[in-house]
Amino acid sequence: MEKYLQTYLDTRRKIIAYNYMGFLFSWDQETEAPSASHEFRSEQFQVIVEEAYKLSSDPAYMEAIEKLYENLNLLEHDLQVEIKKQYKDLRWVKKIPKDEFIDYQVLTQNGSNVWQVAKMNNDFLAFQPTLEKIVEYLRKFVKYFETDTLKGYDVLLDMYEEGMGINEYDAFFNKLREDLVPFVLEVTKNKPIKFSRKLTHSVFPSEQQREFSHYLMDVFHYDKTKGLLKESAHPFTNGVASVDTRITTHFHEDNLVSSIFSTIHEMGHGIYEMQNDPKYDKTFLHGGTSMGIHESQSRMYENMLGRAKEFWEVHYSKLVEIFPKQLKNVTVDEFVQYINTAKRSLIRIEADELTYSLHIMVRYELEKLLINGKLKVKDLPKKWKQLMGEYVGIRPKNDAEGVLQDIHWSGGSLGYFPTYALGSAYAAQIYHAMNQDINVKEAIQNNQMDKINAWSKEHIHKYASSKTPKELMLIATKEPFNPMYYVNYLKEKFSK
Amino acid sequence: MEKYLQTYLDTRRKIIAYNYMGFLFSWDQETEAPSASHEFRSEQFQVIVEEAYKLSSDPAYMEAIEKLYENLNLLEHDLQVEIKKQYKDLRWVKKIPKDEFIDYQVLTQNGSNVWQVAKMNNDFLAFQPTLEKIVEYLRKFVKYFETDTLKGYDVLLDMYEEGMGINEYDAFFNKLREDLVPFVLEVTKNKPIKFSRKLTHSVFPSEQQREFSHYLMDVFHYDKTKGLLKESAHPFTNGVASVDTRITTHFHEDNLVSSIFSTIHEMGHGIYEMQNDPKYDKTFLHGGTSMGIHESQSRMYENMLGRAKEFWEVHYSKLVEIFPKQLKNVTVDEFVQYINTAKRSLIRIEADELTYSLHIMVRYELEKLLINGKLKVKDLPKKWKQLMGEYVGIRPKNDAEGVLQDIHWSGGSLGYFPTYALGSAYAAQIYHAMNQDINVKEAIQNNQMDKINAWSKEHIHKYASSKTPKELMLIATKEPFNPMYYVNYLKEKFSK
Repeated sequence: MEKYLQTYLDTRRKIIAYNYMGFLFSWDQETEAPSASHEFRSEQFQVIVEEAYKLSSDPAYMEAIEKLYENLNLLEHDLQVEIKKQYKDLRWVKKIPKDEFIDYQVLTQNGSNVWQVAKMNNDFLAFQPTLEKIVEYLRKFVKYFETDTLKGYDVLLDMYEEGMGINEYDAFFNKLREDLVPFVLEVTKNKPIKFSRKLTHSVFPSEQQREFSHYLMDVFHYDKTKGLLKESAHPFTNGVASVDTRITTHFHEDNLVSSIFSTIHEMGHGIYEMQNDPKYDKTFLHGGTSMGIHESQSRMYENMLGRAKEFWEVHYSKLVEIFPKQLKNVTVDEFVQYINTAKRSLIRIEADELTYSLHIMVRYELEKLLINGKLKVKDLPKKWKQLMGEYVGIRPKNDAEGVLQDIHWSGGSLGYFPTYALGSAYAAQIYHAMNQDINVKEAIQNNQMDKINAWSKEHIHKYASSKTPKELMLIATKEPFNPMYYVNYLKEKFSK
Repeated sequence: MEKYLQTYLDTRRKIIAYNYMGFLFSWDQETEAPSASHEFRSEQFQVIVEEAYKLSSDPAYMEAIEKLYENLNLLEHDLQVEIKKQYKDLRWVKKIPKDEFIDYQVLTQNGSNVWQVAKMNNDFLAFQPTLEKIVEYLRKFVKYFETDTLKGYDVLLDMYEEGMGINEYDAFFNKLREDLVPFVLEVTKNKPIKFSRKLTHSVFPSEQQREFSHYLMDVFHYDKTKGLLKESAHPFTNGVASVDTRITTHFHEDNLVSSIFSTIHEMGHGIYEMQNDPKYDKTFLHGGTSMGIHESQSRMYENMLGRAKEFWEVHYSKLVEIFPKQLKNVTVDEFVQYINTAKRSLIRIEADELTYSLHIMVRYELEKLLINGKLKVKDLPKKWKQLMGEYVGIRPKNDAEGVLQDIHWSGGSLGYFPTYALGSAYAAQIYHAMNQDINVKEAIQNNQMDKINAWSKEHIHKYASSKTPKELMLIATKEPFNPMYYVNYLKEKFSK
């Protein structure tokens, strides 16, 4: 056992270092690397990926994981959790024939280019063969990975959110379909409100938006000695240790609020990882425990905190100070209404808080049908339009603003989307629990976001990946996941 | 042979990828990495350094280099040059006993911390034991590396500038001592001119200095698709391929010209590497061929081009546009005089163009004495003061502004300093040669720096490291190195 443990720890140390290089590489790539260096850089990184793969597929390392797994009870708790996760990951090497695995890697690596061109040309047929192959492989892998408790699409869902399968998601989305869809269709049936042209048609220079984003970092106590804010085409959070958690945002000069909520959203992700117990920094347990829990933090910071009336009663004056001309005569009430308005729209990433999870429900239903074989890839566009009509009350005219809008499927990420809706629902339940312990509105009014950070650290963040999502929801909210909190939260907010 | 070549090429591919990771790591570290992540990051990088060392000290790889070296004539020209360099580098592993090598690595890695504290406390005695050990090791290594043609200090000099030994440098510095020292002492004997307080005592905000640095990048046609400009405590150039060459500068708000000449200086380094023939990108021949040639390019861009009257006749109006209040009533003539004034000063990195190489001469003489054993480390401070008095006409009052001012010796870099002076002298000769082909002043007046870049590419840059400094000087200037060009250049410029 001593020998296996040593092999495991030695290899883990190296893999984490390679992961750090991958982190630096992608951070550089997305935020500043010179454009002409793309090919050169990719070739260098390819070598590092190969070396890292050699490490994690080394027979001695895999044997060590298996032996440790067989003797879990001899390990201390955190290491047990870690070994279980690593053992599960061995599936990819052990259960999938090598040629299929490599073929799938190439397929999904090239998938995003194929998808990008297809989307640009509004040409689903150009993407269809690639997506067909991906779905075919995933259906195969699902068969390889099935267990007594995980069947079909369950296997994919479980990859992104342990403990959530078809039954659990069906119960969640059925609740939304029954309770939320009629409400949303009612709320959004009229033409959207017209806001002051100053808000909707001014130019908001990046430099000033950047200033406000940095102001927001201070407001949320985002620790700048452990993180950075930069810009990238698509905002993201990239963290590898509690001491190094970086976020990006994006400035659109014709849109004041996009960067504000991107920054707050990514800070939610970032504060989560930054507040992980540092003891996990050099283990595989650092980071969020699941996509759903991660998204619950970003959504809570963005929506429950960042869009609250109380928040802007404190911080709107700063925004006006930075954009005095653009926001002249725009009251804080109008601004708050502007950032909390709901409408039927086609594009998920631009959707408002109310309709967002219904966009996800469309994708969930489609993925389920694709994996259980009841829907063919060629029939996707038609089915997409139908479900959008049913759930969101609007149908795309073309595939670019329909089935082709998201990158996820081109990289094989089926089973991922549902965590976005789940995260919003987790957020509502967590927010409710937090309010039992502290007066959140009052904390916002007193500009004490550190109180909220502290509660989140104590009840969620510090655990990193050492608890499953289910365990964490119990710890944080003292009850199992219950979508009613989400439905009630949305109905209360958007009834006003 | 086929087998050895394959081993060599496979390992080279990996080493270059690890070098790229090292490049990314240090770039991140120097320009933006969160301060609290220092320890975590260092540990990760340590793993990568260990892996890279394993590669380059792999017996099969070393054997491949030796076999290829024994059969050089079977290789094409560039590969011959490359193998010769790699073979030379094997000395470090093959001729130095492993325990000495490791001990020396640790000693020089910790040296900079010891030095930093000693400098801060103006306490040479705190640094003395470390420097004594370093000098002792270097004297040992010199013995291991000596050949028929390289003796003593020659061995160190040759590491930084192939073909330059004590004889060559003595000839060079004797020339400076005879011709330049009396001239400099004469020119600088009076109190320095007083310039407008607007120039010397205004505040120049970083944001505007940054704007001017970016303007300079455009002026010099620094290709932003292949490079970046950022900020760091000490300006540097970091390049790994013609397509990825990054530079930094530093803004001092109380000093307008420091960032200007840092930016131009680093662009000189950067344009050199960026204009290397891309065929060297994935070989060990990418990059400047020697420290001296590298410095010749940065010095030429900074001093011959960037400090030229003609340059500011074109670009001063832009500077005034950016700093209208600070430069009100400061004429271009005063500005040009301000940036070309010479005076006796203590600190090398702040020294002007005229006195700079005499600061270097002090270090050269001291290093020579240390390595040949005629000077003990404990007697350095006294000897430093004496030589500064003789060559620069000014004596430091304490060691912090004397013998402790530079980091180089703390890392074992003896033999490096002389290339700084040599680079300035190369620059004068190259500048003279360039003027035989193109009218440089006219190109500057017409804002055609691309013409100067093109000449430099054709005569120097494109060769990367495939030519020795001696070969390159012959190609570029059609004659061997001749310090008279430098002396004449300085005398002509500073006689005015």
